[in-house]
Amino acid sequence: MTTPELSARTHLGRPRKIIDGLEKLVGRAPYVADQWLPGLLHARPVLSPYPHARIRGIDRTAALAVPGVHSVLLGADLNVKPMHSRPSLLLAEDLVVFAGQPVALILADTEAQAADAAALLDVDYEALDAVEDAEAALAGGTLVWPQGVPKADGGMAGLHGGEAGAQVAREPSNVDEDRTFGRGDVDAALAGAAFTAGGSFRVAGVHQGYLEPHAVAAQPGARPGEVTVYTSTQGQYVVRSEVAGALGLRERDVHVVPLTVGGGFGAKYGIMDALVAAAALHARQPVRLVLTRSEDMLTTMPAPAIDVTLRLGAAADGTLTAVDADVRIENGAFRFGHGGIIATMLGGLYRCENVRIRTRELLLNRAPVGAYRAPGVPQALFALESAVDDLTRQLGADPLEWRLRHAVQAGDPMGTGRPWPDIGLRDCLEAARAHPLWQGRRDLPAHEGVGLAVGGWPGAFSPAGAVCRVDTDGTVRLHVGSVDISGVHSSMVLIAAETLGVDPDQVEIVQGTTDSGPYAPNSGGSQVTISLSGAVLDASTQVRDQLLDLAARHFEAHRDDLELTGGQALVRGIPDRAIPIGKLAAQAQRAPGGPGPVVAEGRAALKAGAPGFIAHLVHVRVDPDTGAVTLRRSVAAQDVGFALNPLLVEGQIQGGSAQALGLGLLEGLDYAGGTLANPNFLEYAFPTSTDMPPLEALLVQRPSEHGPFGARIVGEPPITAGAAALANAVREAAGVRVTELPFTPEAVWRLRQAQSGD
Amino acid sequence: MTTPELSARTHLGRPRKIIDGLEKLVGRAPYVADQWLPGLLHARPVLSPYPHARIRGIDRTAALAVPGVHSVLLGADLNVKPMHSRPSLLLAEDLVVFAGQPVALILADTEAQAADAAALLDVDYEALDAVEDAEAALAGGTLVWPQGVPKADGGMAGLHGGEAGAQVAREPSNVDEDRTFGRGDVDAALAGAAFTAGGSFRVAGVHQGYLEPHAVAAQPGARPGEVTVYTSTQGQYVVRSEVAGALGLRERDVHVVPLTVGGGFGAKYGIMDALVAAAALHARQPVRLVLTRSEDMLTTMPAPAIDVTLRLGAAADGTLTAVDADVRIENGAFRFGHGGIIATMLGGLYRCENVRIRTRELLLNRAPVGAYRAPGVPQALFALESAVDDLTRQLGADPLEWRLRHAVQAGDPMGTGRPWPDIGLRDCLEAARAHPLWQGRRDLPAHEGVGLAVGGWPGAFSPAGAVCRVDTDGTVRLHVGSVDISGVHSSMVLIAAETLGVDPDQVEIVQGTTDSGPYAPNSGGSQVTISLSGAVLDASTQVRDQLLDLAARHFEAHRDDLELTGGQALVRGIPDRAIPIGKLAAQAQRAPGGPGPVVAEGRAALKAGAPGFIAHLVHVRVDPDTGAVTLRRSVAAQDVGFALNPLLVEGQIQGGSAQALGLGLLEGLDYAGGTLANPNFLEYAFPTSTDMPPLEALLVQRPSEHGPFGARIVGEPPITAGAAALANAVREAAGVRVTELPFTPEAVWRLRQAQSGD
Repeated sequence: MTTPELSARTHLGRPRKIIDGLEKLVGRAPYVADQWLPGLLHARPVLSPYPHARIRGIDRTAALAVPGVHSVLLGADLNVKPMHSRPSLLLAEDLVVFAGQPVALILADTEAQAADAAALLDVDYEALDAVEDAEAALAGGTLVWPQGVPKADGGMAGLHGGEAGAQVAREPSNVDEDRTFGRGDVDAALAGAAFTAGGSFRVAGVHQGYLEPHAVAAQPGARPGEVTVYTSTQGQYVVRSEVAGALGLRERDVHVVPLTVGGGFGAKYGIMDALVAAAALHARQPVRLVLTRSEDMLTTMPAPAIDVTLRLGAAADGTLTAVDADVRIENGAFRFGHGGIIATMLGGLYRCENVRIRTRELLLNRAPVGAYRAPGVPQALFALESAVDDLTRQLGADPLEWRLRHAVQAGDPMGTGRPWPDIGLRDCLEAARAHPLWQGRRDLPAHEGVGLAVGGWPGAFSPAGAVCRVDTDGTVRLHVGSVDISGVHSSMVLIAAETLGVDPDQVEIVQGTTDSGPYAPNSGGSQVTISLSGAVLDASTQVRDQLLDLAARHFEAHRDDLELTGGQALVRGIPDRAIPIGKLAAQAQRAPGGPGPVVAEGRAALKAGAPGFIAHLVHVRVDPDTGAVTLRRSVAAQDVGFALNPLLVEGQIQGGSAQALGLGLLEGLDYAGGTLANPNFLEYAFPTSTDMPPLEALLVQRPSEHGPFGARIVGEPPITAGAAALANAVREAAGVRVTELPFTPEAVWRLRQAQSGD
Repeated sequence: MTTPELSARTHLGRPRKIIDGLEKLVGRAPYVADQWLPGLLHARPVLSPYPHARIRGIDRTAALAVPGVHSVLLGADLNVKPMHSRPSLLLAEDLVVFAGQPVALILADTEAQAADAAALLDVDYEALDAVEDAEAALAGGTLVWPQGVPKADGGMAGLHGGEAGAQVAREPSNVDEDRTFGRGDVDAALAGAAFTAGGSFRVAGVHQGYLEPHAVAAQPGARPGEVTVYTSTQGQYVVRSEVAGALGLRERDVHVVPLTVGGGFGAKYGIMDALVAAAALHARQPVRLVLTRSEDMLTTMPAPAIDVTLRLGAAADGTLTAVDADVRIENGAFRFGHGGIIATMLGGLYRCENVRIRTRELLLNRAPVGAYRAPGVPQALFALESAVDDLTRQLGADPLEWRLRHAVQAGDPMGTGRPWPDIGLRDCLEAARAHPLWQGRRDLPAHEGVGLAVGGWPGAFSPAGAVCRVDTDGTVRLHVGSVDISGVHSSMVLIAAETLGVDPDQVEIVQGTTDSGPYAPNSGGSQVTISLSGAVLDASTQVRDQLLDLAARHFEAHRDDLELTGGQALVRGIPDRAIPIGKLAAQAQRAPGGPGPVVAEGRAALKAGAPGFIAHLVHVRVDPDTGAVTLRRSVAAQDVGFALNPLLVEGQIQGGSAQALGLGLLEGLDYAGGTLANPNFLEYAFPTSTDMPPLEALLVQRPSEHGPFGARIVGEPPITAGAAALANAVREAAGVRVTELPFTPEAVWRLRQAQSGD
């Protein structure tokens, strides 16, 4: 492979609209809910209202009597393998371990019939004592898994670029993992510190809140145990493994067709897929399940509530001497590993010789948690960056300058001890410093303030393949196995267009299935763009070589005298010697004894990741009478290495900023009584566009050593610092320190009252 | 690319079951009629009952009043480009040029509603004089196209491996083409011949008679003019071109998804696809049309009726000195080029210095003809091989020995003058000679006889691509753009299995669409196996190299010490040093900085074709009282070069033999009065299994210079000689020469009566 000279770039690095915008706007994008199959049965789950219960019996009579009902499936009908994770959990049999757990699945000719039958299903529950919160989990009186937590073959955390937790055999306990990461002597450092800051911080569990609920359709195949799964997923190969694993099928018999994804944010890795596939195989008919919003919020895998108790120590000169954190993660009924990534970031944002981070992963009778954009990090950095803000106040230091002085750079250790590669955290701080919002922060009206926080994400990376073809009409087809949840394919198109000298509109993405797709990583862990780019570049560079060879033969010219531009191959300096690349492809495709169709496959595997960092400024006004916070402005300076498509990169940063502010101000799962009390978008509040201030994205471009074209990960960093920056802005505007997210006007008002009462 | 040593073959060349047998048996193979789409409208065409008529007006009122009817589409609603061929013909506007031509299309919620409305559509026709038969066509009083025949951009004949006819501007005429092929001085040769034989022969038009009628579903896309076409086709890329061409769309906006084909035989190249696509774009909803059997036989493209007047001359020593033929081809309302291929074979089966073949392609007011397995050749060889049989009788020569002496071989000219490459016609005759049926032909009971005829087909070939991948579970995926109408993919699987040392059950074919598929030629013209094999071999050989490299690294061994066998890579002679190829793929797919997923694309383009020849023996009994012919046995010796999968090759030969005998005994389109009188399977008789004798296939394997592994074309030769052999068997058994196909017992009886009356 020879890499073309792309220094003078025509398409890469320039903003360009997203390629699937039109089909989404006009309603032609194929979602699972649009999927019709002959003989389709509609499914409706029956969910447990109890967080912990024994099922004494289920009477199907009334449900089966509803006209159009095909069957009422119970666990004993479907379960074939022991469950060990939410995706492998089909239907409860004797025991329910969380409120929202499916106990039956109704199949009927219409959705309405299935819903009617679900309402009539008579389940006899015996309610049991439940582990409803972290305190109950730690007390251990009741155990979620008295026989020990079901073992995962390979946890879910690895999917998201986080550090997988080591698994240690222990007595049955609700503390699934208890790990301590660190270096140095924290106790001594704290004892000797000139200044300390910290406190206890809590972030509520939140839901990913994608617009499209989980939706799956499955169709039995010809072979016994063969099934095709149409799904809304961030990773079709993961769904294949999950379904095959849960049902004991061969992977090759599970065909996954990824359809348009209406939002993922870490949650779309096949939660309902095995259940729907099992139902279709059982019914020998296609089955489709589209969760309602309430079902979705009750039965899927949200982000955990996380408590962080933190203490920082600093020397008189401001040097950070100690980071001491105790983190409790409320994982729900199954294991999930947030500890490693939380430690990575808590102990890896600032240079510090003494670090101790204890992470405890707790089991509760609550819906098992899953990944949500930068899992655990916004929660952990809310604590760290709030404490840093307080520390700098004690030090009398400028919070930006202090961070700039102490921020990690290449070679400094992460919280796990491994060194960072080249990163741009300081560059982000410098960009924030130069911004008018920071420069003018002292000149604001009363009750207004600007808060600063930093964040980041190490990011995953994986090998990938891609196939590139040129059709006889000049269309370039890029065949990929990745799914597009945030515009990745719009950037891949630019790479091919740049390499082949065609307009990006001439490039068509072909979405592969698990059968047809060249392997690509999940669209999660911020990895897909940096992982796939190399394969696309490899494939399109080979196609470029093929086209130049064809053109050299066509013009009887030397390859070095040729170039590809404007969809044509031409002889440099002789404008009328040009031939469209489609014609070259047609010649190759038709010539007896010729080279054959213009097509090439590319493969690539990065050697290391390309972490992304962010500095976030949030400007608020706090109403002095009510405590209500008005968001005035958000400025996020993020190091993206090189923005393949700046428009989409800015969009990702804006989206992450909005989610971070929602996390701070509005969102929170309410598990009062062990059952989710607000499983809908009326009672669970999301920010809307009217809640949002202008969201500015500053693209810092410090090229990564490893990422293609210098690109870094983009997706996860933007959510990591915003909530902390918001809290620091409130501190600045209103003089109070919020320690719980989300915070209400009442909470701010009470803090102010308490303060003025001092 | 290094070619693996495949001399000791494990899978190639051994009989193995067809890979899609199970899904067809259990009803899971996806046919167009199974295709459901949201908002699907069902279409029903209204066909003209008149062969030639002016449409005075169409009143849609009654049809539109049928409940559930969405629209009644007329030509003015849909037609955007001038039509020049059957596939580009949407709906008639002012003029109807054949009985069966669509004049309207009803769209309704159900098929029944559409059919009701079609029956109620009030079309006011003014019947016009029609060109009903060849005599009328040649008389020229009425012209099918008084303004000249609509021009094709590129005729249909090229699709099928035939010689495309040169197009000459002429006065409007029903004689669309009048070509003469030849060499030497035929008149002088005939004048000086010691023996002559010949006569006038006629073969009725026949229908391809696939089990699945033409069926198309189309769904509008997001972009204006974008449409996805689900179709039963032999060539998805042809359908794409036809639809784009007829509707004036960009090729890249037409997405063709080929579904299971329920029989093609040359007829499935998108006859209804443009109409259905236009209807879907007009309705902005998906539309599906599944023709009824009668509609299908009335409106699609059958094989032409062909008349051949032939005279052969021979010297006293038996040398063939003259072939003089006058061929009339009844093409129907549009042009189609059978002349070149007929001349190729009529003048290219025996060595002869003086050849003159005139071919006239006639236009009639009749459904335009299309390709049917070896288009034109069974008809032409019925004439030639009957005349040869008579000539050898005059010469007192053994018909097999005479053929063996005069049959063409490499370097001898075809009827068009081009030389044959290496061919196996003589080998086939030798195989037939050795067969007990031929050896025992003198020892049969009275009224029985064995007839011999030979045939063949030059065959097409085209470049092709393929992609091969290894999944982490060891499944080998072979991604191809070809469609499978006769088992081609079952043979491709063997090539990959052989190359990679896996069981063929471990190889999965991935059917590409026009978007995803690596380019492959049509499954027609007998070309797909020989054209695609090279690409599959190239791709799987590259994958083999990748696996060996991975294994060499894994075992720290030299590549030369490794082999792939039983789905594993192993170190030769050390049985416990083995690793499944899926594990190697997983290593490659997961290793940071590694080679990436195991995947490769292959490309290939043959330099020349690999013609296939056949010698066919048919054994009959003719009832002396009724003239009824009973088929006793059929033995077809065909040179297949190398049978990649002998089971499927034998199946192709048996199928072609059956069709040849049906052509001889039963099938015939009845155009009495200009309108097809037998458009159904009650009145148009096909042979059934009870009509068929044992069909024996002798595989002659004379390796082709060009075909992969020495393979030759297989699909078309088996139909080319059977009808002539049948006629020669009747001559042998009953002493009479039939000159019309199909022939009835009455016809044979009358011939016998006429003879005994002599």
